[in-house]
Amino acid sequence: MSPEDTLMDTLNAIEPIAQNFMREAQKRSDNLTKPQGSLGRLEELAALVCGIKRTLKPKTENKVIFTLAADHGVAEEGVSAFPQEVTKEMISNFVNGGAGVNVLARHINAKVIVVDMGVKGEILSKDVIIKKIANGSKNFTKGLAMTREQAIKSVLYGIELVDEEMKNGTIDIVGTGDMGIANTTPSSAVVAAITHAEVEKITGRGTGISDEIFNNKIMVIKKGLNLNKPNPDDAIDVLSKVGGFEIGGIAGVILGCAKNKIPVVIDGFISGAGALIAYKLNPLTKDYMLASHQSVEQGHKILLEYIGLKPLLNLNLRLGEGTGAALGINLVEASCKILNEMATFEEADVSKKIN
Amino acid sequence: MSPEDTLMDTLNAIEPIAQNFMREAQKRSDNLTKPQGSLGRLEELAALVCGIKRTLKPKTENKVIFTLAADHGVAEEGVSAFPQEVTKEMISNFVNGGAGVNVLARHINAKVIVVDMGVKGEILSKDVIIKKIANGSKNFTKGLAMTREQAIKSVLYGIELVDEEMKNGTIDIVGTGDMGIANTTPSSAVVAAITHAEVEKITGRGTGISDEIFNNKIMVIKKGLNLNKPNPDDAIDVLSKVGGFEIGGIAGVILGCAKNKIPVVIDGFISGAGALIAYKLNPLTKDYMLASHQSVEQGHKILLEYIGLKPLLNLNLRLGEGTGAALGINLVEASCKILNEMATFEEADVSKKIN
Repeated sequence: MSPEDTLMDTLNAIEPIAQNFMREAQKRSDNLTKPQGSLGRLEELAALVCGIKRTLKPKTENKVIFTLAADHGVAEEGVSAFPQEVTKEMISNFVNGGAGVNVLARHINAKVIVVDMGVKGEILSKDVIIKKIANGSKNFTKGLAMTREQAIKSVLYGIELVDEEMKNGTIDIVGTGDMGIANTTPSSAVVAAITHAEVEKITGRGTGISDEIFNNKIMVIKKGLNLNKPNPDDAIDVLSKVGGFEIGGIAGVILGCAKNKIPVVIDGFISGAGALIAYKLNPLTKDYMLASHQSVEQGHKILLEYIGLKPLLNLNLRLGEGTGAALGINLVEASCKILNEMATFEEADVSKKIN
Repeated sequence: MSPEDTLMDTLNAIEPIAQNFMREAQKRSDNLTKPQGSLGRLEELAALVCGIKRTLKPKTENKVIFTLAADHGVAEEGVSAFPQEVTKEMISNFVNGGAGVNVLARHINAKVIVVDMGVKGEILSKDVIIKKIANGSKNFTKGLAMTREQAIKSVLYGIELVDEEMKNGTIDIVGTGDMGIANTTPSSAVVAAITHAEVEKITGRGTGISDEIFNNKIMVIKKGLNLNKPNPDDAIDVLSKVGGFEIGGIAGVILGCAKNKIPVVIDGFISGAGALIAYKLNPLTKDYMLASHQSVEQGHKILLEYIGLKPLLNLNLRLGEGTGAALGINLVEASCKILNEMATFEEADVSKKIN
């Protein structure tokens, strides 16, 4: 089977979430010892997870955050405040448990799976899953970021990550994460290509760049879009022309989760670009996604609205790695515990509303 | 010593938080393996906790949520959707671990301390701390909600709760919570009296009331304010004329935390009314408070802005009990772990920003 056919198989295997389980979950929620609706979005989250998992007793024990790393040829255009070797250096930091995502994953009792999707240079740690497509994507101001075959491969690798981890045991909930110096640049390009938003409106300061670099970044993104002319109706085309390997991988993780009926909590802007690719490939994925937070990156709001996702948190985060996803997973877990553990009016012998 | 003098002693014992520890904490944060400021409000939270505790290694292990319950004479004016006996019934639910606050406290590994500040009827459970002032406050449309002596007593009881729990071991962080049928009515009255906001603008639907009851609720609050004329510059006067025992108790818990240099996470609207009383008694308390969430109750935004607090979450919650505080504590704990556990650039051997 060709890679394109394998991808099509996954896209076709994604089912709509189960509305009847959502309704039953909300019914149970309405009967718990609290005024109806008084736990707001927690009630909505729990119902959504029930719809995804087709159960009224949603488990959240086995939590996995996939942190996908890759390098970007466009980094040579001077769009980031950090040198490219930081991508590889941060992988060691992830493996040693010292990065932000490690701390927050321990806080919520989640496993972090670190993946080399295309980091420049060889990763030797046996604690990193190698799904390497190339030593970084190419500079999209000079041609394609990657070939169409590589773009499809990056998405298939993401799907595989979920399928392979399922073989190690159940996954109850997934978070996405990224690492890749310069990767807000391809993310902005992907968002601009798909949503038709102006580049100026969706480009942010990434890790913290000066005005000069910021203006250059906008020019670089425009140059890449003008040169490559990605087709907004062909997400794989967009990914191959102006995307990145971790962005494709994240799209794949989301497709893998949707196929396997696992709720997937989307991190920030880079994960959002991956979410946009997944959504364009199959809009049914939307109902499997939960947006963890509203990033500082200004394009994030536009892409979440495009998909139709409402972020859970707004804490001015802009780190990536899956840090926001970890906090989001924690809220989803809380919502499921409410549904599973709270007493009903009958059980607690509490009087009901009188009017 | 008179109760009034005892209260004055606590007010005088509250010190400003330590700006130097806040600055040192931010310096450490800036040197962790992430772009500076990229963990947004988490970094601010951690710095604030360091300023409160005067340490750079803030602990959050011992977490306590105080859920203070009381009844309200004004309930007889038909301002709530639930019968008054629910206050007492919910205390059993708290003791049995079946309420929302129990579930979320277990989720964050916090202890819930349930307190009878003035519930109608006798509470027999030995798992409830009895700080009973009376069998409910009086109907403030017909006179004072409580005497000035009772108001002071409710605040002193709140302070005692913190002091007594400190004797059982350290408290690293506190959350506030409430239970009391009809208590959004006195809370709205307190907020209106202190902030001078229009009653219409700060009155919400509480547990979920109809238009008719809502309009009646506004009339009831106006009647209470017109009859009793609370003095906005005398928080104890406001509390005694239109407040409630749990509202006074929450103010006391906040004062007790400030005195003992413990960060205190404020729940929703009712806790906010307590926070307003504490803030008016001593504005230094503001820096010890963290606002967990923006409640659906429309007066909540006004009171938070009056104090100068920015809520962490916006999840359309309106349950009270300390449920929002539990979620807020969880974020504060995450922020402290970031500061304590993340590797610095030097430790992780990661390259720094180039420009």
